Amino acid sequence: MAETQEATVSFGVLNETSEHESRVALTPDIVARLRKAGVSCLIERGAGLAAQYTDDDYTKAGASVLPADEVIAKADALGFVDRPSTELLGRLKPGTWVIGMLGSFTDAEYVAALDKAGLVGVAMEKLPRQLSSAQSMDEMTSQNSVMGYKAALVAANAYGSFFPMMTTAAGTIRPAKVLILGAGIAGLQAIGTARRLGAVVTAYDVRPASRGEVESLGAKFLDLGLDFSAGQGEGGYARALTPEEQAAQQAAVDQKAAGFDVIITTAKVPGRKPPVLLTKAGVDGLKRGAVIVDCAASDLGGNVEGSTVGTSVTDGGVTIIGAPYLASDVSNTAANLLARNVGDVLAHFVKDGRLSIDLNEELDDALIVAGRPAAAPAQA
Amino acid sequence: MAETQEATVSFGVLNETSEHESRVALTPDIVARLRKAGVSCLIERGAGLAAQYTDDDYTKAGASVLPADEVIAKADALGFVDRPSTELLGRLKPGTWVIGMLGSFTDAEYVAALDKAGLVGVAMEKLPRQLSSAQSMDEMTSQNSVMGYKAALVAANAYGSFFPMMTTAAGTIRPAKVLILGAGIAGLQAIGTARRLGAVVTAYDVRPASRGEVESLGAKFLDLGLDFSAGQGEGGYARALTPEEQAAQQAAVDQKAAGFDVIITTAKVPGRKPPVLLTKAGVDGLKRGAVIVDCAASDLGGNVEGSTVGTSVTDGGVTIIGAPYLASDVSNTAANLLARNVGDVLAHFVKDGRLSIDLNEELDDALIVAGRPAAAPAQA
Repeated sequence: MAETQEATVSFGVLNETSEHESRVALTPDIVARLRKAGVSCLIERGAGLAAQYTDDDYTKAGASVLPADEVIAKADALGFVDRPSTELLGRLKPGTWVIGMLGSFTDAEYVAALDKAGLVGVAMEKLPRQLSSAQSMDEMTSQNSVMGYKAALVAANAYGSFFPMMTTAAGTIRPAKVLILGAGIAGLQAIGTARRLGAVVTAYDVRPASRGEVESLGAKFLDLGLDFSAGQGEGGYARALTPEEQAAQQAAVDQKAAGFDVIITTAKVPGRKPPVLLTKAGVDGLKRGAVIVDCAASDLGGNVEGSTVGTSVTDGGVTIIGAPYLASDVSNTAANLLARNVGDVLAHFVKDGRLSIDLNEELDDALIVAGRPAAAPAQA
Repeated sequence: MAETQEATVSFGVLNETSEHESRVALTPDIVARLRKAGVSCLIERGAGLAAQYTDDDYTKAGASVLPADEVIAKADALGFVDRPSTELLGRLKPGTWVIGMLGSFTDAEYVAALDKAGLVGVAMEKLPRQLSSAQSMDEMTSQNSVMGYKAALVAANAYGSFFPMMTTAAGTIRPAKVLILGAGIAGLQAIGTARRLGAVVTAYDVRPASRGEVESLGAKFLDLGLDFSAGQGEGGYARALTPEEQAAQQAAVDQKAAGFDVIITTAKVPGRKPPVLLTKAGVDGLKRGAVIVDCAASDLGGNVEGSTVGTSVTDGGVTIIGAPYLASDVSNTAANLLARNVGDVLAHFVKDGRLSIDLNEELDDALIVAGRPAAAPAQA
């Protein structure tokens, strides 16, 4: 691993290169935080601008604002929102730490490229989220939370009526009926935001445990009118549904969806094809004017059959918004949270003014996917 | 005035021609309502589509869906969202009633054109809003209410952080500070919506009475630190501010604005240059990332000095959204409310199966700006 002359760690962040990315992996707040942990910060000129952080803000916080090449040359560790291209990996000096969502669950080739380039790969997606010491490092939670908030706002903004009930001299407007499919972090935040706006919210998730979470937020859990209880509970786990049960479940969701004005789907799976939560039959059953926000839309498909990135309107007058970049669209706060997550991961590895790995520690063992010390080979 | 053979009134609505207009002056709900009042409805093909009402919806409600020429030929009265062009006025048959926002306060030439074409002009803007019988006819209130709701949503959607306070493992996000300038119907609705979303809301209006309305919604009234009380209250009215006092007021608003993340201005004055509520100095004082939604933006200027229709970003990183079409953007509900307003005005004039004017009635005297019966000339 790298070591600077003063035995302090240099952390660098470059401009994100994806055209849809407004976030940045270091913010002025976190520069100040990292300095206290013995880390000096380097940031490429203009890297924070899309998230409303100026070079001047970074300088005032104590970071050095430099051209990209100098950041790369001087940094012991680099932080990223979107993982760097393999081309960029080739430009990094051996021993550099690369911290970010590296896609290690689905892309062994990328991990191999990190290893081949002599880099240390710190995979944010492998964070053991159950550890209380890891909570402030949980990028998936922080960014999905932003995504869920924004998904509800985008839906409300696209919908041609009110979310809240309104009583006016010219008649009473009923509140919007909103269905959230997928009740993880993003889904729960979308529930909360849609309810803030006054909508009547229902949610569904295949995990039976989610019913309690949904109801605790004041939303209804979607009743599919199906009973899969036979055989459940053995050994304390829910059994997998049979293909026939899955088909019945999907058909029931499609049918129930017809009663809603707005549907938000949140089952995003980075690097993998997302599960279809609403089929074309479900979309076709919706009312004219209904709005769908599909947070999982991607080149591999989305949670809604046929959804693509961007906005489209079906022949039946249903607006489908394929919106994979929602966290980036709330750039200022999303970046600040993400920078905190990345910064806390980095700080964890700083010991006595240098970066070090102890594979006996659960965090280290989980996060280091490339450049692992030879004594303990990487897990499969 | 026109009279059909069956002594029932025919009410027609055409496609709105403004490219920014998604509303329509007749909706299926109101077709059914008007039928009960002895009015048969005619609507141009496709006129409701942008507001999610199909020709089929209108037919089912009992309207006749026709080409524009037939609507014009058969209708005794026509309803409009945006007033018809003078070219279109020339194509209407004499005696036709034209109901809509006609701009009569500011455009005497247009009123003269109505008179010259032998048309009856029913000006929605002249509604005596204090009459309780007129409340369901109050298009300005219904549409400004929609505008205020939408303004808050647009602002929240453009803002790079959260409106609500959020406590997360990666830090606490403070709620957005929102300032509403202009606390009429639109401003009050914007206050309510921003507060629903969890923002901390402050509002200001030059009308001293607005303080109570603002505070009753749980928002703060902006304290300018100025005292204009000398000479107030004489005769029960607030006195006009002197030019010096106005300048002091403006400078104070500009200065106070710097403390806010989001500013929504709502002082829209149809047909006239809107008052400037925030000068360029005020805009320049805002933080990078601040968002302004100017509901009054127009070719004549807006409430924000230098604002134009559409979105722009200042050198200081302030996003200014000039948004004069916000009610139209919530087309489905905005149209339904507007159609109710227009329909109730029309129904008021239907007596014994025909349209008739009684200038002894306050409503009639106020609303009829062209084609007034000769006995009682129009008021100035």
